[in-house]
Amino acid sequence: MSSSDIFLSETIGTAVLLLMGGGVCAAVTFKRSKAHNAGWVAIAFGWGFAVLTGAYIAAKSGAHLNPAVTVAVAITGGIKWSQAPVYFAGEMFGAIIGAVLVYLAYYGQFRAHLTDPEVLKDHTTEEGLVDPKAAPKAGPVLGIFSTGPEIRNVVQNLVTEIIATIVLVLAILCLGLTKGVALSGIGVLLVALVVTGIGLSLGGPTGYAINPARDLGPRIAHALLPLPNKGGSDWGYAWIPVVGPLIGGAIAAGIYQVAFA
Amino acid sequence: MSSSDIFLSETIGTAVLLLMGGGVCAAVTFKRSKAHNAGWVAIAFGWGFAVLTGAYIAAKSGAHLNPAVTVAVAITGGIKWSQAPVYFAGEMFGAIIGAVLVYLAYYGQFRAHLTDPEVLKDHTTEEGLVDPKAAPKAGPVLGIFSTGPEIRNVVQNLVTEIIATIVLVLAILCLGLTKGVALSGIGVLLVALVVTGIGLSLGGPTGYAINPARDLGPRIAHALLPLPNKGGSDWGYAWIPVVGPLIGGAIAAGIYQVAFA
Amino acid sequence: MSSSDIFLSETIGTAVLLLMGGGVCAAVTFKRSKAHNAGWVAIAFGWGFAVLTGAYIAAKSGAHLNPAVTVAVAITGGIKWSQAPVYFAGEMFGAIIGAVLVYLAYYGQFRAHLTDPEVLKDHTTEEGLVDPKAAPKAGPVLGIFSTGPEIRNVVQNLVTEIIATIVLVLAILCLGLTKGVALSGIGVLLVALVVTGIGLSLGGPTGYAINPARDLGPRIAHALLPLPNKGGSDWGYAWIPVVGPLIGGAIAAGIYQVAFA
Amino acid sequence: MSSSDIFLSETIGTAVLLLMGGGVCAAVTFKRSKAHNAGWVAIAFGWGFAVLTGAYIAAKSGAHLNPAVTVAVAITGGIKWSQAPVYFAGEMFGAIIGAVLVYLAYYGQFRAHLTDPEVLKDHTTEEGLVDPKAAPKAGPVLGIFSTGPEIRNVVQNLVTEIIATIVLVLAILCLGLTKGVALSGIGVLLVALVVTGIGLSLGGPTGYAINPARDLGPRIAHALLPLPNKGGSDWGYAWIPVVGPLIGGAIAAGIYQVAFA
Repeated sequence: MSSSDIFLSETIGTAVLLLMGGGVCAAVTFKRSKAHNAGWVAIAFGWGFAVLTGAYIAAKSGAHLNPAVTVAVAITGGIKWSQAPVYFAGEMFGAIIGAVLVYLAYYGQFRAHLTDPEVLKDHTTEEGLVDPKAAPKAGPVLGIFSTGPEIRNVVQNLVTEIIATIVLVLAILCLGLTKGVALSGIGVLLVALVVTGIGLSLGGPTGYAINPARDLGPRIAHALLPLPNKGGSDWGYAWIPVVGPLIGGAIAAGIYQVAFA
Repeated sequence: MSSSDIFLSETIGTAVLLLMGGGVCAAVTFKRSKAHNAGWVAIAFGWGFAVLTGAYIAAKSGAHLNPAVTVAVAITGGIKWSQAPVYFAGEMFGAIIGAVLVYLAYYGQFRAHLTDPEVLKDHTTEEGLVDPKAAPKAGPVLGIFSTGPEIRNVVQNLVTEIIATIVLVLAILCLGLTKGVALSGIGVLLVALVVTGIGLSLGGPTGYAINPARDLGPRIAHALLPLPNKGGSDWGYAWIPVVGPLIGGAIAAGIYQVAFA
Repeated sequence: MSSSDIFLSETIGTAVLLLMGGGVCAAVTFKRSKAHNAGWVAIAFGWGFAVLTGAYIAAKSGAHLNPAVTVAVAITGGIKWSQAPVYFAGEMFGAIIGAVLVYLAYYGQFRAHLTDPEVLKDHTTEEGLVDPKAAPKAGPVLGIFSTGPEIRNVVQNLVTEIIATIVLVLAILCLGLTKGVALSGIGVLLVALVVTGIGLSLGGPTGYAINPARDLGPRIAHALLPLPNKGGSDWGYAWIPVVGPLIGGAIAAGIYQVAFA
Repeated sequence: MSSSDIFLSETIGTAVLLLMGGGVCAAVTFKRSKAHNAGWVAIAFGWGFAVLTGAYIAAKSGAHLNPAVTVAVAITGGIKWSQAPVYFAGEMFGAIIGAVLVYLAYYGQFRAHLTDPEVLKDHTTEEGLVDPKAAPKAGPVLGIFSTGPEIRNVVQNLVTEIIATIVLVLAILCLGLTKGVALSGIGVLLVALVVTGIGLSLGGPTGYAINPARDLGPRIAHALLPLPNKGGSDWGYAWIPVVGPLIGGAIAAGIYQVAFA
């Protein structure tokens, strides 16, 4: 497959992933949303089905949608390392587009939320998606774009992201999904439910980025979009959901090669 | 397949879709329902499994159940344009029948709700499914029939419906479901979960019609049924969930042909 | 397959169905249960996965587990009418056994609930699973065994059960599951999710028996088990969840033969 | 397959099972978790998807992940009895590792919880996962590691675990998953949903261990980990979730051989 085909497919797939993933965070956070306060079960299934949808749409290119997956697939020989930058570029570009689409779909809700005196008072979302301690750093809608820790601790936050990403990537490798571009119907469903499971089980401490593009792309969008009173993009935390998942993906590839290849 | 076979299959399938979809809205809205206040997760899965059930039952005709899908299938060559009106007719007729069946299944609940002084006082459902600002336009049970916006804004409402329908139709096209009438077991499950995902992620602002027949058919039923104190059918909004999904379906067909065909 | 094989398979499968279905009602109703107040989403998925489990276990005999399904399969030629009584017997016997197993698994919870002065005061469950108006007829744990209407109205209750059963049986027939005893993996999952969907959408008014054995078997168990202060078994309502589903199953078989056979 | 391959596969698979299963208990229990109070639906799906993930990862060795399954597979001839100890060892070792990984992923949350005066006051979790009556025996985070009864009654607790394990193992045997090491995609999904169903339906009284390793491994980890104020590991109850599931697995194997083999 040509580089432009890979780029287009990964861009569209990752855009859908972030549109639906960011969308469910918006849906649960905003008061003037029909899904307001739908809870963590909604978040976890919402992200799982975001993966499901994005992965089917991008099946043509293998549906990595995640630089940590691309790294693990390259390590285990599923793609050539020379192809990795095209994947990375599509993933990052798509993630930014997806975040912008969330902004368009929830335009009025963003405006209402960011001019609500109650919200601005404590600079935190009602959902607790943003650490109250981090309020000066994390603006009131940052949780709709990027992840943030409940307890800010570099070592623990990194460890949690590494562990959660190992589970994700090991499951993907064991399913054999990354050996080619062909994705069976049931395989993608399984990965989607694994992602839902990771959200339910391991999302508590950091909000489970488990994907550098999923976190960094929307954070860039948050910084660029013309949102009133949006507050900080918490750049001090931004490296953890990038580095953690990349380490986790590499470790998973190693475990796979030792134990299951 | 003959036109009458297509019509019958799409009518029955869409009737089941609206019976179950409208049903879950009724189940969650009415006080005297065992599912009262079951929340948005119930709504989103309820509509997803409504699609699942309707699609299996109408598999014979390809299970469009949605004029936006019919348009996209016609654009991408899955059916002839001359067949589209038969699909449209079955979809609209089935949607009206489905809404009437919800009325029959929840007959006593409709009566109790529409004569409850508390409900009538503010002309809005307890679930917030109807915009309180729209109370003079939208009656207290309209949310069980048709969608309505949380924030009434023509441009945003249209954009949200377009975006959500693009996701739906692009996923359907990429799954290859519309190339023939044969629907594999897993394929329909995936579409159902994509619909659940769209509900969780993109249903917040407008209630995700993403299907002209799903919205217009029940709105007609709402206008015709002998419901006491039913209030208005909000015809001023009615064009948005028709035009938005049709535009979205056409755009999705275009994206599919450029990037994935 | 021999009659005794059919009987054994349907008995065990239906026992598992009722053990898990009654179990989720117990789990949500009792105060001293880890799932207390888990809500209608738990109920609907619990019954769906009860069908899933029972159906896989009874796949050998076609996993009817429901006299309404047996009737529809006989009408459409999937079994001989002479085999139907064996199915009915296994379904009823299994349903009674399943209800007794719920009693054993939740023994202490039943005792605690039925001697709790607060519960006895109004002779109704905390979950509202039993119509408060029906309190003199329906005892405080009857909702764990059998269904009951939110609004007691013979015509509506019958219509709701007929409509919901048509959806169930039509989906089963269209899936082709009843043409032989072979059940594909995905097919049973789909039926389970259809049942979950029916629970979410059409369970509000009557609690969706949609299966004569599911309702009558546990009602007999309720009448026979040595439960203190158990109150009435509401025999006046008992015929509706038997007759309604049988009519619904027959109508579905008719629709199937006209539109889809 | 060599014994070391089996051991490695079962160890990693069971570690993932307990990491995700214990993880969802932690996610719901801790105040400073994004999933705080997500409820029993989250717990039941979390454990189901934990099984899903662990089973795919350990498919190579048949993914028993549970001594009760190993016993049933040995009885029905799927493995030789001489292989059973290797399975048991991997299952127990993996369960301990999984519990330790939960501790690492939720490190800060454990510290905050175990030094919270409100939590220490009554030595019980906020979720009621630990029987308040058992407070002197069960420490405030034991519910994240091991199961405990809502009502402490040796006979009922044992019966509940036996019944729930019969359902699990009978479903696995009827699915034919244990006849070889090959696990089809859909088969593991079905087992995962059966586990979710057991959690919803039969988890109320004891928290559904249904797996000796799932309970005993993390209990050992609880006893060994350097947790401040951790309280007792409730060793008096520990034999029930070991013996009950083993009896249940053996009974299920017997039922299977009589009725379905």
